[in-house]
This record gives sequence, structure tokens and C-alpha cells, in this order.
Amino acid sequence: MPEPRSGSRPTLEAVAALAGVSRATVSRVVNGGDGVRPHLADRVQTAIQELGYIPNHAARTLVTRRTGAVAVIIPEPEARIFSDPFFSRQIRGISKELTAHDTQLVLLLVEDLCDYDRIERYLAGGHVDGALAFSLHTDDPLPAIASRIGMPMVYGGRPGWTAGPGEDDKVTYVDADNRGGARDAVRHLLAQGRRRIAHICGPLDQTSAADRLSGYHDVLPAAEPELVSVGDFTAAGGARAMAELLDRDPSIDAVFAGNDLMATGALRVLRERGRAVPAEVAVVGFDDAEPVAESADPPLTTVRQDIEGMGRMMARLLMERLADGREGRTVPGPVITETALVQRASG
Amino acid sequence: MPEPRSGSRPTLEAVAALAGVSRATVSRVVNGGDGVRPHLADRVQTAIQELGYIPNHAARTLVTRRTGAVAVIIPEPEARIFSDPFFSRQIRGISKELTAHDTQLVLLLVEDLCDYDRIERYLAGGHVDGALAFSLHTDDPLPAIASRIGMPMVYGGRPGWTAGPGEDDKVTYVDADNRGGARDAVRHLLAQGRRRIAHICGPLDQTSAADRLSGYHDVLPAAEPELVSVGDFTAAGGARAMAELLDRDPSIDAVFAGNDLMATGALRVLRERGRAVPAEVAVVGFDDAEPVAESADPPLTTVRQDIEGMGRMMARLLMERLADGREGRTVPGPVITETALVQRASG
Repeated sequence: MPEPRSGSRPTLEAVAALAGVSRATVSRVVNGGDGVRPHLADRVQTAIQELGYIPNHAARTLVTRRTGAVAVIIPEPEARIFSDPFFSRQIRGISKELTAHDTQLVLLLVEDLCDYDRIERYLAGGHVDGALAFSLHTDDPLPAIASRIGMPMVYGGRPGWTAGPGEDDKVTYVDADNRGGARDAVRHLLAQGRRRIAHICGPLDQTSAADRLSGYHDVLPAAEPELVSVGDFTAAGGARAMAELLDRDPSIDAVFAGNDLMATGALRVLRERGRAVPAEVAVVGFDDAEPVAESADPPLTTVRQDIEGMGRMMARLLMERLADGREGRTVPGPVITETALVQRASG
Repeated sequence: MPEPRSGSRPTLEAVAALAGVSRATVSRVVNGGDGVRPHLADRVQTAIQELGYIPNHAARTLVTRRTGAVAVIIPEPEARIFSDPFFSRQIRGISKELTAHDTQLVLLLVEDLCDYDRIERYLAGGHVDGALAFSLHTDDPLPAIASRIGMPMVYGGRPGWTAGPGEDDKVTYVDADNRGGARDAVRHLLAQGRRRIAHICGPLDQTSAADRLSGYHDVLPAAEPELVSVGDFTAAGGARAMAELLDRDPSIDAVFAGNDLMATGALRVLRERGRAVPAEVAVVGFDDAEPVAESADPPLTTVRQDIEGMGRMMARLLMERLADGREGRTVPGPVITETALVQRASG
């Protein structure tokens, strides 16, 4: 409920004046204090107490014209969002961080490109202060929309698109070291003595898929093209790709799948064709989002990425950017998180 | 993007004057025409064409002060929302209907009761025109919040709560015939000659669980209390409940589970204990949301509810209510959809 607009309520400006700092500094302290030097933060806190300033959300909204809400936009069919635990883990991380900032998460689903007209109107309507987006594809119109309407954004995943002329250096993103993780997976298979190592990659209009494919090629620069099959990050797509690979080359003795769901599809096809895992064919996935890898049969060796941590980091970077209030300046460079190979029974 | 506020743009009022109808009637025609008598709708359409009135969303927003967005609030932990296909199916139905009305779906997740302060501020902030909520528990504060801030709501599921003094007749909801569906399931098991029919019910602070338990008791009024075990609508909860039931009474020859996920948990425990399904123990679930029942081992006999259809219906009722604009009057009574027993291998 809106706070009464009482004239006697101490303002953020009054706090700034008493503390002898800028309005932006008070705002930053109120929003968590990141980047404010300790002696200044102390002065602000003293002024806040002296004046009885209540930096609650509603008051902040009045002062900053903020809504206290942040959109999370996922341009994937809702069937995929609800079946791949990657999405729920990322949302969990975002949600935890936004809750810590008393900020409402508003989830906007994008089923197809037509939905973007409506999304643009909603974002332009002043209902959220900023937005987070992940799982973008190279042809996604969202970055152009965001730059057109001046919406502060943080992205999950390395951009494969351009935000528009002069805008690319304002793109903040968080990603895993997809290429390095893929290299680890393939090296692990090589170290086991595997000699025909195939790769099921994700859709190549997503940089996560392209980067994992690059990592595979880094380690196996001479791999024949028929050892690579393109899936779509779903179990069904992984099964199709595995069947294709075996049809092309029955001597395959290992598969690195671009995510765990595709790896479970591959496991199913290998089982159907009577190929023992890992004795005849080793399988390694990517993600390690519960419960897919652990509950697979056999449990999947996989490349773990800190999905929840990346979600938290995306939200944190956006909160910092909003607290900062200086949209024009160069934004923080990308944050790339490490991956780790988790060995289980499949390879 | 906002439409230019040009003075020459024909207004909804002008259309109403030319057609000789009320503003509300024009609004209803623009929003789909439900409930407008054909000859009036024709007059409105003629006036719209004559004046070149463009009833697009942005113009509607200016005229009606609507945001063109509707919140969907699900008071369940996000881990559950993303693991039970019931939720994604309901959301799919809602999303389809809202898209048909060019309305943005805004998903608000509620992890715990503390989140409601923030949700209330968001709802009261004028960022959505109305809200849909399902999977409410009896202690849920949402109905009281909605009536306090005057937010038009449609609920999924029979309310087990009260909306507040004088507010209960304004509660619109959509539900499945949970009690009738449960009766069908238990009668089906009886007809097979099953004699020790247990029930795993959902959390009893949800009316769907309570109503299915009532249906079980309708058919088996003399069932001993130890034949009923309480789960939580998850597979793990179903497994725990099944283990409890077998420990109490090893002679159980059938189980009706309150949803499919609990039924899959029951199947797992029966398999672990070497009880053949359906030869020794028959299992029937509830929901039939893909892929749970069909991909269970063995595939589940279950009570199908039209989850997506209920989602569409919830959204449609809200859209009608918003187009109507008469919040004070008595709202439509509940819509109860039929269920159907789907027989597969498990019982």
C-alpha cells in the first residue's frame, strides 16, 4: 500500500544534506551499501537514525520512482522452461537475491516472437525497474527492445547478438566457462582411453551450445564432422541425435552431450540398442542441475555449472546497476563462473 | 509503445455516441463481444468502422487506464511448481487465453508467507489489471489482500478460506469435480474385485486433496483410518505414504493416490518391495498431466482433469470481469469441470 505523502516524513534529500553526501550515496547505502566507502556509509547511517528516516520500500518508490520489481524474461517455450531444471535453478538464484533486496520477481514467458510486442509495451509501461533475461537466441529481439526503451538489463549467457550501435559495451552478462568445461569433459574421456568421442551439441543459435562445441573441437581438432550431431537441449532431441550418431558410426565409444537432458536421451537410446554404459560407450553431460544427472541410469558424469550462483550474480549486478542510477556509463564486464567435472557412473 | 495522444484520434466515447450504446458496451465489443446482444454489437462495429476507431491495446490502455497485464500467483515453493506438470499445464491454458486477449501474463512466485508483503505492494501499485491464483492453502492471506486492495481475482480450486466479511459471494473460481473423480477411481478399483483399497491423499489444507478424500469415503464409508495416509502431492511424499500403508497393512491390494506424482512414488515403493503392479496391487492416480502418468512404469491408470482447460476458463472469466468493469456486482458462480477415468496398465 502506498505510504502517506506526509510533508513531515524525512526525505532522502534531508538525509543527504545532513550527512553531507550526494543523494545517490544515500540511495546506495539504503540499497545495501555496495561501493560506498565505510566512513561515508557511517555518516549516512547516523543521519538516517537522527532524522528517523524510514528507508522502506514504499518510501523508496516515492523518492526514486522505482516499482520495486524486476522482470525475468525467458524466451523459451513454457514446456521447456518447466521440464529442464536449469531454468528453475536459475530462477531460484535470482529469486533469492531479489528477495534479499525486497524486490518482486515478475516472470514473463515468451512463447514466440509475436509475444515481444506485448512484452515491450509492458516493459515500457514502467511496471519494472529492470530486467534479467537468459537463454537468448541469436535472433532474439529483446536486446534491441531493451536498448530502445532504455531498460536496464543483465543477461545470462554470452550474447550472440548485438544490442545495437554503441550499445554493446553496455551489455552486462553472467556466463559459465562453457568452452573450458567442454574441454574438461572431452579430456576426461580421452584420459579413459576413449578413441571415438562424439558430441551432441545444443541448438547453435545459443552461445552456450556453440561454446561447448568449440571446447570439444579445442581438444579434438581433427574430429570428423559425422561425430557431431545437433540436438535441442531436450531429452527427445538427445535421443534423436544419439540414434543418428550410432547409425553413422557404430564404433563410437564415448559421447559428450551439451547438457544433461540430452545425455539422458542418449542413455535411453544406448540402452535400447544394447550398448553397455560405460563399458562400451561412456556418456558425459553438462549442467548437474538436480535431479537429472544424479537420478539418471546410470548416474551421469557431468560438467557442473553453478546455475543458482549465476542467477544470484545476475540479480546482484542488476541491483547494483539500479542502485547506481548511472545508466549512461560503461557497465561491469562479464562475469564468467568456473565449471567442475563431477564423476559418476556413466563415464 | 504508447500511442500518440492525438486529439483527432476517435475515442471510445465517440463510438458509443454514434452507436447509441453505453461506453461499457463498446468496451465489451472491443474486448471480444461476450454478453453483448448481436444487434448492438453490429451497431458498435459499424460505428467503429465509420469513425476509423482503432481499438488496439495501447489505445484501450489510455481509455481504460488498464495495464494490459494480469498476474498469476502460485503460492507453492518454486521447486514444486517446476516439478509437477500440473502447474505448467495450468499456466499454458492461462497463457493461451491471455494471449488471445493481447494481455501479458506476469507470473509471481510465492516462496513463503513473508513474500506476501511485497506481492501486496506490487498488486496495489497498479501494475496489473487483475490476478489469477491457484493451489491456495486454507491459511493463505491472498484472498484477504485481494479484497483489501480491490483486485479482481479468479481462483483455481474451491476456496477453503474466506475472502472476508461480505466478500465471499464475489469469489469466482474454477475447479475440477475432484470428489466425483475420486469416486470414479475407487469404484473402478472395486469393480476389479479389489478389497483392501488404500488412499494416499494430498495435503489437507488444500480443498482438492480434501475433496478427493471425501470421494474415497463416499464409496468406502467403512474404510478404516489406517487405509488413508497423507502425502504432499510430491513423488517423495507418495513414496513415504505408500511405505507407511504397507507397514500398517501388507494385505492392501489397491491404492488410489490423490495425484499422479504421488502415484509414481507409490509405484517405486511397491517395486522395491517386490509387489507386482497391477497383479498384486493396483494403482490409480489423478491429473493425467503429461508426461507423468503415461511415462510411469507401468503407465498409470488415472483420473484425467482438464487442467489446461481450467486455466483457460480462469483467464476467460477474469477477462470478462475486467471487460465488464462492474466490480461491485455478484460475480459468476463456480465453474466445475468434469473428470474422466483413463485406464492404463497400473490398475
